[in-house]
Amino acid sequence: MNKLKLQVPSGAWDYLPQECAAKRKAENTVRNEFLKSGYHEIETPSFEHYEVFMHDAVPYVQENMIKFFDLRGRILALRPDSTGPIARLAATKLLSQDDVLRLCYVQNAYGFFNHGIAGKTEFTQAGVELIGKSGADADAEVIALAIRALKAAGVDDFQIDIGQVAYFKGLIKSASLDEEQTEKIRLLIDTKNSVELEYELSRFNIPADLKSALLELVSLFGGAEVLDKAKSLARNEACMQAVDNMKEVYQILCDFGYEQYISIDFGILNNFNYYSGILFRGISGAIGTPILSGGRYDDLLNEFGANTPATGFAMGIKEVLLVLEQAGMLTQDEERVTVVRCSEKSRKEAYAFVQELRVQGKCAVLELNTSSYDAQKYTVIEFDER
Amino acid sequence: MNKLKLQVPSGAWDYLPQECAAKRKAENTVRNEFLKSGYHEIETPSFEHYEVFMHDAVPYVQENMIKFFDLRGRILALRPDSTGPIARLAATKLLSQDDVLRLCYVQNAYGFFNHGIAGKTEFTQAGVELIGKSGADADAEVIALAIRALKAAGVDDFQIDIGQVAYFKGLIKSASLDEEQTEKIRLLIDTKNSVELEYELSRFNIPADLKSALLELVSLFGGAEVLDKAKSLARNEACMQAVDNMKEVYQILCDFGYEQYISIDFGILNNFNYYSGILFRGISGAIGTPILSGGRYDDLLNEFGANTPATGFAMGIKEVLLVLEQAGMLTQDEERVTVVRCSEKSRKEAYAFVQELRVQGKCAVLELNTSSYDAQKYTVIEFDER
Repeated sequence: MNKLKLQVPSGAWDYLPQECAAKRKAENTVRNEFLKSGYHEIETPSFEHYEVFMHDAVPYVQENMIKFFDLRGRILALRPDSTGPIARLAATKLLSQDDVLRLCYVQNAYGFFNHGIAGKTEFTQAGVELIGKSGADADAEVIALAIRALKAAGVDDFQIDIGQVAYFKGLIKSASLDEEQTEKIRLLIDTKNSVELEYELSRFNIPADLKSALLELVSLFGGAEVLDKAKSLARNEACMQAVDNMKEVYQILCDFGYEQYISIDFGILNNFNYYSGILFRGISGAIGTPILSGGRYDDLLNEFGANTPATGFAMGIKEVLLVLEQAGMLTQDEERVTVVRCSEKSRKEAYAFVQELRVQGKCAVLELNTSSYDAQKYTVIEFDER
Repeated sequence: MNKLKLQVPSGAWDYLPQECAAKRKAENTVRNEFLKSGYHEIETPSFEHYEVFMHDAVPYVQENMIKFFDLRGRILALRPDSTGPIARLAATKLLSQDDVLRLCYVQNAYGFFNHGIAGKTEFTQAGVELIGKSGADADAEVIALAIRALKAAGVDDFQIDIGQVAYFKGLIKSASLDEEQTEKIRLLIDTKNSVELEYELSRFNIPADLKSALLELVSLFGGAEVLDKAKSLARNEACMQAVDNMKEVYQILCDFGYEQYISIDFGILNNFNYYSGILFRGISGAIGTPILSGGRYDDLLNEFGANTPATGFAMGIKEVLLVLEQAGMLTQDEERVTVVRCSEKSRKEAYAFVQELRVQGKCAVLELNTSSYDAQKYTVIEFDER
């Protein structure tokens, strides 16, 4: 027999009964938190026309996407995330009726990814998009929702790191670097590689105080005190506005009582071209990759003909399950199945009895008394001997 | 702008908020019926190694499957149904621990299909597999579960047509036809095309009474009376056993009180090579395609190294929603969202108030009183004026 016949494709998973029950529970808990917060669930196709993912604003990497042809030769791509498809859906079907949309989803994303959880190709994400609102209160709303969703799912030990790409964009604008140089600097700051960063900066002809400001970005993280430091390093109005925006988001989240969960980090610069303001990620000591990430993406909807700001995040369900597992919180007792054994003669009455058990909320099976069942695994009731 | 950017791929759907809520409700209701009946939910990857779907027992049509290469050049295929993947999963991971498995799923299937709901390429199926049990009581168990699941989902006007491929296989064996001729006859019976069937049969050199028995198959449907008729036409032991098996299944379902929902039809011969005994489909006058289909497939597990009988069915969620829509039962009142408007100064207290509403089960949003909300769509509370 061909061995591939018995194997799961690399980067994908089977969820066996206990794992699947835990996954469903996490998904439902997070979805419920979204719905209670005024978000409406939508569902998009697993694949889209490739064109949906082809735009400047988004760093969808062509090589990572899983693509195939439809029967007419058009390229379809399994969605690498849900934000692009939701932007398409909102722009074409919903924004004509509402200025502000609160949308959420629990659906899979796909790609040949080597980062994150080792080589994943299919993964479930639960996320929200708040479309049609700019401003700190919208960003604070989705960050607060991310915090509540993690807590609802049972994740206690986590931190939300919040960055603001406009601050870096403001600094780098004064430096007159080309795109490639900018990208190099961005990557070194995002990975907090200060040694290489210092070396690279020394090669460029930029003012000393700007150099040191860029170098400071690597360590510009912590609590409210970071805001003053960032203000003192600001080079222009763009930087000042970025700090003010961050300050407002921070203040709102403190008002909400979430100070303990949040940390400011002006050095977070992932998906730099995609995000246009606040961006954030949720991390846990229990696993090495972010549990969630999100931010403001004011340029994306424009790709679909709607000039509308938006902010949101996506949470990895597998990551949530891994954190819960690390914390020993996945030992879920599955509902024990009751087996009712009867003779052929008593089948009619026994079926009515089993249906009664089900109405009472029990998981129950009807079997002939010629079948044997493991009393260790099942609660067995002999119907004829009752 | 490229028009494809704004379009959903043909045969796939966006589910907007109200549609998505109805879909989720149907899925949850059906899943809950499966779980209460002692079935355990599992989840498999959206795509499998192509080899999983390459076997004689199953009529997976190569041209219909959506295929692509992984990074190492292996062919992956989006699952055309869930039964193959579950057979793989059961054979490799679960059958070593249990002889009898009751598994269920709610997941999507994919393919370039032109039958059924016009040209669907992605569709959600909810189904069960009862693995490790042969015999009429196992078949009756899954048919009864199909009936309960439809009723639970709100589908009232439906009928389950039950066939038995072994009966036709018994008849055709006596006819000494080749594979191509057999397939022609099978197709004409399955589509109840008696005119062409009579013509084709007249061309073959088979005994007159066998000819008329095959011709009778087209109209061999109805209630219990069909069983006697089938017995009188039986040509050999295989036919007799098929009738006895059908009789037993019918009797059990009558014991369960489902006589009104079931109809016997020895002329159902779809997926002839796949099914090995009882097969059935659920139909509703409201739509032209079956809502569910299933049957016994005792040869499939063997493809994955486990010589184990199995029976099951899959229900189309889109089909269920269409039937409900036709019956005017989709006018679901979505939970109305409450918008709490506050000043910046009262934000802290207002957030606590909104959280309280959510604990009470309300869907609630916090907004600054500078934002405007349509009182037609939302329940608006002015926090500062309370």
